[in-house]
Amino acid sequence: MVNTLKRIDALKKSAFTRGGFDGYLIFNSKNLLYFLGFPGTSSLFIPADGEGIVYVYGVNYEQAKAVGKNFKVQLVKNDENLMAKIAREAKDCGVKKLAVDALGVENWQALTEEFRSNKAVELSGGFVQALRVVKDPVEIKLMRKAGELTSRGMEAAIEATKPGVKEFEVAAEIEYAMRKRGAGPVAFETIVASGACSAFPHGGCSGREIREGDLVVIDIGATCDYYCSDMTRTLVAGKPSEKQKRIYNVVKTAQENAFEAMKAGAPIPDVDAAARKVIEAAGYGKYFVHRLGHGVGLEVHEPPTLSHSNKDKLAAGNVVTDEPGIYLLGYGGVRIEDTLLVQKDRAEKLTVGPCSLRP
Amino acid sequence: MVNTLKRIDALKKSAFTRGGFDGYLIFNSKNLLYFLGFPGTSSLFIPADGEGIVYVYGVNYEQAKAVGKNFKVQLVKNDENLMAKIAREAKDCGVKKLAVDALGVENWQALTEEFRSNKAVELSGGFVQALRVVKDPVEIKLMRKAGELTSRGMEAAIEATKPGVKEFEVAAEIEYAMRKRGAGPVAFETIVASGACSAFPHGGCSGREIREGDLVVIDIGATCDYYCSDMTRTLVAGKPSEKQKRIYNVVKTAQENAFEAMKAGAPIPDVDAAARKVIEAAGYGKYFVHRLGHGVGLEVHEPPTLSHSNKDKLAAGNVVTDEPGIYLLGYGGVRIEDTLLVQKDRAEKLTVGPCSLRP
Repeated sequence: MVNTLKRIDALKKSAFTRGGFDGYLIFNSKNLLYFLGFPGTSSLFIPADGEGIVYVYGVNYEQAKAVGKNFKVQLVKNDENLMAKIAREAKDCGVKKLAVDALGVENWQALTEEFRSNKAVELSGGFVQALRVVKDPVEIKLMRKAGELTSRGMEAAIEATKPGVKEFEVAAEIEYAMRKRGAGPVAFETIVASGACSAFPHGGCSGREIREGDLVVIDIGATCDYYCSDMTRTLVAGKPSEKQKRIYNVVKTAQENAFEAMKAGAPIPDVDAAARKVIEAAGYGKYFVHRLGHGVGLEVHEPPTLSHSNKDKLAAGNVVTDEPGIYLLGYGGVRIEDTLLVQKDRAEKLTVGPCSLRP
Repeated sequence: MVNTLKRIDALKKSAFTRGGFDGYLIFNSKNLLYFLGFPGTSSLFIPADGEGIVYVYGVNYEQAKAVGKNFKVQLVKNDENLMAKIAREAKDCGVKKLAVDALGVENWQALTEEFRSNKAVELSGGFVQALRVVKDPVEIKLMRKAGELTSRGMEAAIEATKPGVKEFEVAAEIEYAMRKRGAGPVAFETIVASGACSAFPHGGCSGREIREGDLVVIDIGATCDYYCSDMTRTLVAGKPSEKQKRIYNVVKTAQENAFEAMKAGAPIPDVDAAARKVIEAAGYGKYFVHRLGHGVGLEVHEPPTLSHSNKDKLAAGNVVTDEPGIYLLGYGGVRIEDTLLVQKDRAEKLTVGPCSLRP
């Protein structure tokens, strides 16, 4: 069990001491995991003073009591109105200005109706996001392990990808290789997209049989204690054509250039541009239809987004993907992706594996 | 590709003709799947007349155009305000009263600000829920297949569960057995909870080694074309004790009694009671800490909830779980679960497999 009290202290410093709130309600399931370290809870109330209160339905109550040692664990009955209950208790605690990380409109209405006034509650997920975007040593350790497991999955993919094999059969081998080494559930739906489907960035994984000469985009991620990883390789089943090799080398150079550009302090648009310029210079600019990458952590897609329109700078402790691609409709696509840890002077690859068109 | 136009027509009949709306916005990803038949979209606008408009970001745009033949597919640019764009277009279409299935509070505020007035938009997910709760023949076919795949996974679980094997090793065999037969991603995180952890209904799946005499709760689900299944068996690694057998037989009888009680028109509290009474009579009432079951479909947990407080009746076409359990803290737990299709005079098991404590 991760001791998450440091994270709660950091939130209190930013949201309470500097932000003017005196209570924080967490509802988003990944934010709950971040501050608690265990799943299955419905909400966490962080008061200015004293222990946090975790709200849990009966089905998970005993488990939360057994593992949630640093929190008051409260049972929520099935016919109780959770929002009214929380609002009442926050009011009783003397909370004047309540922050909420995220909420559906229906629950929002129920919560604000019961609390002091509409204006006493504010949607302020940014404080949590600012913490999650910089990984702490515990998180980095888990993400390194998730990256290793993902790399083992990619080895199995390279081994399994052959003409005559179905896409889902390759997925089965990948997931088995990760799982039997101790990985948790996959971080996202495994993509094994062959032939024309490889031209769709999210090309899925079907019963299609891989054919000789197909481009096959394989995009996979293991988890380790809820932390995700994300890695893509593109293979050709059989002998690659000259055109396939040409496109591949463009993407590979683009990915390497972005990797070289990543370090703490680098403006994100510059990092995106480091890859995009290579692809544009080769004449494929309009076929690189997505951003360079995204943050990874408890979610496989989380801040920071690595796109030209995000004017932020990278920070040490960011974990992000580097995944340029070229997608030629009706022909096929190539994407190469690794998950990287941003450090002071460089980035470190958390996913490591051969990068070649030939399996 | 499923032809989903019938589902959209049914929604128009209930929400427009009878409900007084003249436009419907779908945001929930499972609702989008239900009305579109393919993933990767951000929103669907259903006007009273003419084709629906699907909003898709660049990364999935070409794929949506290739498969979304019955819809207008609109590209959303990365720096566009999607809510403002949709509100504008719905207004331009002459929509006076707009229904929304579900939305976060931030997006809700952006949408209502841009549309006619606060009061011209209403959160009305119920119309969609009422459709999804009764499965159509296409859905039933897919859920039957998902049930078969899940049953194959359970066979692998029974084969793999032995003293000395780790929980995640059993999970690896289960998921491999389902995947290599063509299953999609798992419907939920596989549970293999042994020993004291089996007493937690959501006991997870860790690196713990299964020991001789352990109760092992195995709760798994395959998907088939996005449709889920849900099945639990409890095993003893080795020779069951008299106490384990006694508890097991109580749960088994409870599960069978609820199965017998399920048919169209049966009041849901009666079905829950059919199982609960057996467990109460045996003196374990307070250890059955959850409802009898839940609906299954595109989500593994969806309406109807099968609890004493849901006063609805079962309807033909409902797909629900029947999963009583007894959880003895510090000792272990037993749960037995199948996914059932409710029909006129009875229920049909979509998950089928041996039900015995001995692997």
